Amino acid sequence: MKRIDLNCDLGESFGAWRMGEDAALLELISSANIACGFHAGDPTIMQQTVRLAAARNVAIGAHVSLPDLQGFGRREMRVSADEVQVMTLYQLGALAAFCRAAGTRLAHVKPHGALYNMAARDRALADAVARAAQAFDPQLRLFGRASSALLDAGTALGLPVAAEAFADRRYLADGSLQPRSDTGAVIEDTALAVAQARGIVCDGKIVTAHGESVTLRADTLCLHGDGAHAVQLARELRAALEQANVRIAAPGAP
Amino acid sequence: MKRIDLNCDLGESFGAWRMGEDAALLELISSANIACGFHAGDPTIMQQTVRLAAARNVAIGAHVSLPDLQGFGRREMRVSADEVQVMTLYQLGALAAFCRAAGTRLAHVKPHGALYNMAARDRALADAVARAAQAFDPQLRLFGRASSALLDAGTALGLPVAAEAFADRRYLADGSLQPRSDTGAVIEDTALAVAQARGIVCDGKIVTAHGESVTLRADTLCLHGDGAHAVQLARELRAALEQANVRIAAPGAP
Amino acid sequence: MKRIDLNCDLGESFGAWRMGEDAALLELISSANIACGFHAGDPTIMQQTVRLAAARNVAIGAHVSLPDLQGFGRREMRVSADEVQVMTLYQLGALAAFCRAAGTRLAHVKPHGALYNMAARDRALADAVARAAQAFDPQLRLFGRASSALLDAGTALGLPVAAEAFADRRYLADGSLQPRSDTGAVIEDTALAVAQARGIVCDGKIVTAHGESVTLRADTLCLHGDGAHAVQLARELRAALEQANVRIAAPGAP
Amino acid sequence: MKRIDLNCDLGESFGAWRMGEDAALLELISSANIACGFHAGDPTIMQQTVRLAAARNVAIGAHVSLPDLQGFGRREMRVSADEVQVMTLYQLGALAAFCRAAGTRLAHVKPHGALYNMAARDRALADAVARAAQAFDPQLRLFGRASSALLDAGTALGLPVAAEAFADRRYLADGSLQPRSDTGAVIEDTALAVAQARGIVCDGKIVTAHGESVTLRADTLCLHGDGAHAVQLARELRAALEQANVRIAAPGAP
Repeated sequence: MKRIDLNCDLGESFGAWRMGEDAALLELISSANIACGFHAGDPTIMQQTVRLAAARNVAIGAHVSLPDLQGFGRREMRVSADEVQVMTLYQLGALAAFCRAAGTRLAHVKPHGALYNMAARDRALADAVARAAQAFDPQLRLFGRASSALLDAGTALGLPVAAEAFADRRYLADGSLQPRSDTGAVIEDTALAVAQARGIVCDGKIVTAHGESVTLRADTLCLHGDGAHAVQLARELRAALEQANVRIAAPGAP
Repeated sequence: MKRIDLNCDLGESFGAWRMGEDAALLELISSANIACGFHAGDPTIMQQTVRLAAARNVAIGAHVSLPDLQGFGRREMRVSADEVQVMTLYQLGALAAFCRAAGTRLAHVKPHGALYNMAARDRALADAVARAAQAFDPQLRLFGRASSALLDAGTALGLPVAAEAFADRRYLADGSLQPRSDTGAVIEDTALAVAQARGIVCDGKIVTAHGESVTLRADTLCLHGDGAHAVQLARELRAALEQANVRIAAPGAP
Repeated sequence: MKRIDLNCDLGESFGAWRMGEDAALLELISSANIACGFHAGDPTIMQQTVRLAAARNVAIGAHVSLPDLQGFGRREMRVSADEVQVMTLYQLGALAAFCRAAGTRLAHVKPHGALYNMAARDRALADAVARAAQAFDPQLRLFGRASSALLDAGTALGLPVAAEAFADRRYLADGSLQPRSDTGAVIEDTALAVAQARGIVCDGKIVTAHGESVTLRADTLCLHGDGAHAVQLARELRAALEQANVRIAAPGAP
Repeated sequence: MKRIDLNCDLGESFGAWRMGEDAALLELISSANIACGFHAGDPTIMQQTVRLAAARNVAIGAHVSLPDLQGFGRREMRVSADEVQVMTLYQLGALAAFCRAAGTRLAHVKPHGALYNMAARDRALADAVARAAQAFDPQLRLFGRASSALLDAGTALGLPVAAEAFADRRYLADGSLQPRSDTGAVIEDTALAVAQARGIVCDGKIVTAHGESVTLRADTLCLHGDGAHAVQLARELRAALEQANVRIAAPGAP
């Protein structure tokens, strides 16, 4: 029986500001990437989100970010590998404290936004994330884009990893994502996104932006937590996968 | 043989700004209260300070604070008990991650500045700090002023506690500190401060601001980390205590 | 012909987070209190909001706050009068720069949240706000609760002031607001809120929480910018006032 | 009679942290670049520094920065031109408010750290800084490296500009600075730095890192405010220039 993880970014409210459909999405996913206060998420939000995820038996990951609340962690910063390592360690610890208080454990780590992209292409920064994860807990699973420097770094250190793919983003032939600035880079049509997800999970294949069929292996699919159609897409995607007899479960789940 | 802990606030630099005589003080103290990023201390500073303390075999504590870098955690804020609990948990986790990466453990927690004073007098806030400590690690020791709500809260939850006294602050007859705004509230004379420390440790007694001799039991003495005379006072105090055959050791040390 | 100002807090989004019905409310009000980055509002939001207000001919005020994004400026902090003065000056200047760039001017200042309450009851802090306003521009109008220390401070310095009242809050006989914690303190019924507004504007009178009819003079009514009914209440209130032949205009307008 | 401006970065303390020899340097310079809260400087520090500069008749400039206290504004961030424009406008307004309260005016603007470098090489970001300056005050003078995109942008908009050179940095033949990572890029020897300054001011020439003599015109020399030798170098440099009959004055001074 095939299996896949469905992950989503949660806990992205901050103070008086709300974001995301956390409660609805927690019914549909198997892994939650929870903001740690650097791009979103304050301690109150973190505790709430961890508790909700634990109650739904959803695996909890630290969604670590550059320190940039105003830019929501989406602006690249020229930081050193040492800085990335310590900011990752800091955020891992902070989120893990809420896991411990909720009687559960931190299962994975996934860089957010600009840091996700930087660690996907820059091996020194990828190594820094991986070293922080290993120093904190060698069982911590690293989530990163399939064929990224981050997954290579995790594998090199012997960490468990999960290759991530996107249902609603177009790919290029080399396995990279078509830049968002290109027309059609985001798949708005729910049926097409569901079809791409099924292709990845059941056949290990996608059709690229230019029509080629290429191999794409993934352990986890990333769903978006915000936007008008987030919950709807998640719901249809989960239903389609279950209908195709795919088991939805976090990577480490038995 | 009598014993006492000497604790000091460390890791209070931030970014490009330096503060404190950390390296020199680590030679003289047995417990370090390390800033966790809310009033001082960024992840780089936290890692450095934890490593230095671990290398010197100095017990490490989280110096948790209200979120106020600009005010250095010294401005009281009207926060709820729930907010205090989650901000404490967040900071405990963040600092503990650096301990884990350095192969050591977090030994204690001490609120900083305004939060120290608020948790000393407000039992609901004191309970919040204690609950966070207990949820994180029931072995974590709570440092607080002798005869404070914070120590009562820790004791009520069954946490190990350490009663703190000050060598260079004048006390009132009820065991509270003379307000800093009073002339003479801070003992500037090193010899007098050393004498007060010796009185506390060897006899369990101090002479108050008004000349009475009263009982004051303490498990740990707080040294100041900044200011012209910080290192000098720490050095003389340690020498005087050792001469009086007092063993300097962290509360939990064997 | 009677006149009244309708003011509302705007520009309370921050970074990726949205808040408030700014565009709709700008059609209905005559004065906008715009967040200056301390409790909400980043430079991008500030510029947008100033431009929208200027385009609608709505008078612009600085909604100055304690520095507390996470708490949305709602948590009281123990700050000195000097700190209040300089944080007010800083925010006045920042917002006024966007006014200048948009070819308009800053018309008023209104403290936000916790600072509003602190400056209403503490004359030293009220004086600090008033001094900052005067130093920046002696024509700047001070908005504050009717019968507050803030209005007294402004009047004492010779600043123009505007006494503020609330359509949807119950008052006590001494002109103060019934605490929010009391049942019924917030008037949820739109018709009742509109009636209270009409009473204040047309008769200078309100019926208190305990049924007495007392005098309440106001130059400006505060509308809420958030919540399900914000726009609806604003619309009905404006319509009712116009029907009663009241002119809606900013205090300084000709 | 030849003239030159001496400028220095001041007001770089923050909260409880001190940095720089502001009082001593204000006796020696003619222009102060004052931090505006984004990389250093809180409202209290800003007011103090503006008052000190005004009292010494030193021209005041806004030292505008990326929002990065922890990195002291030295980490490049991928920000849009629009973001640079509004963050510049915000900081100009904030500092100008303290100038107005002190009875003086804002004379210039100089980007700090990473933003200085970004605006020196990226014309779109340089234009954004220049547009903000123009929108705020078309008389505001733009300080930037000689032969930089920033000066070109200012000139294109008709703003007054000042070309900046460094006494203690080695140049390359094209007028750019030798990268700090190269050995010898920073001139540690005071006499050599003074000689380079004299060469720039009196002859419009420097000797490059590779021994060529090239033309370098400058309106202002940048002195460093921190480090062991800052005040000493400033003192010797000023003395040498005065001895060479050079008048030290801000660019706009009569």
